[in-house]
Amino acid sequence: MDQDDCLFCGLLGDRGTAAWVSREPGAAAVALLPLPDSSLAPGHTLVLPAEHCVGVHDASPRALHAVADLVQRVARAMTNAFGADGVNVLNASGPASGQSVPHLHVHVVPRWPADGLDTWPTSLSQHEVRGDIRARLADTLSTPATPEHPTF
Amino acid sequence: MDQDDCLFCGLLGDRGTAAWVSREPGAAAVALLPLPDSSLAPGHTLVLPAEHCVGVHDASPRALHAVADLVQRVARAMTNAFGADGVNVLNASGPASGQSVPHLHVHVVPRWPADGLDTWPTSLSQHEVRGDIRARLADTLSTPATPEHPTF
Repeated sequence: MDQDDCLFCGLLGDRGTAAWVSREPGAAAVALLPLPDSSLAPGHTLVLPAEHCVGVHDASPRALHAVADLVQRVARAMTNAFGADGVNVLNASGPASGQSVPHLHVHVVPRWPADGLDTWPTSLSQHEVRGDIRARLADTLSTPATPEHPTF
Repeated sequence: MDQDDCLFCGLLGDRGTAAWVSREPGAAAVALLPLPDSSLAPGHTLVLPAEHCVGVHDASPRALHAVADLVQRVARAMTNAFGADGVNVLNASGPASGQSVPHLHVHVVPRWPADGLDTWPTSLSQHEVRGDIRARLADTLSTPATPEHPTF
């Protein structure tokens, strides 16, 4: 599943160096620190699947579950190691999402009281969608004929 | 696992009304729209486990995987139903994280080009952690004796 032109696949293939936080042999997910310039907080960690996928849309069940499990372990470790009082979990998937590297990665950002970090968006989407939005989503979710894996 | 004083457990117990997007009988995760005042974008959806847990720290594997699976299905539905070009996935877990309702919930926010939404934090944490942060996290993750489920 390694992709030659993918930054994270390169790191997983030992092309380049990374600050690994978790890299267990055969594990379906790994964790590493972002580049220092991209770190929002001390201990900010990225969790990603070992196999290549672009985002949450095209992840395999194995990749998705392994990432979720490791996000949980990293969140617990942030409390156990640094006394963090919580985490923010952030992901961008798809070309309009602000995604940086097109290999699924989940940011786990440790939080402390009065740390000055505000992870919540302050702007609102200007995109308009007409009709009964809830019903359209619900119908799409409950219709097996709908292609579930969109291609961007 | 229903908790009397939990807003989401109340909705799951049919105490109050919700704009359900996905609520399949026996499913371990459900999806609903946030209150209109809290919606960041048309179709913004919350995914949560049917059983009560506070956040990613204390979620059971079943709850965690079911939430991840439904986040993926909702993200795909946003593209199939509304032509979204991606999603942002956001979660706050723990008292210092900005979490609103203390029942695990994951925000899935659809994105479109030039939608004016910026989901990325613009501030940096002012909290300081000393020592080799990567090594401390890695050691904590690889030490089975560490209590993995912190209590806030």
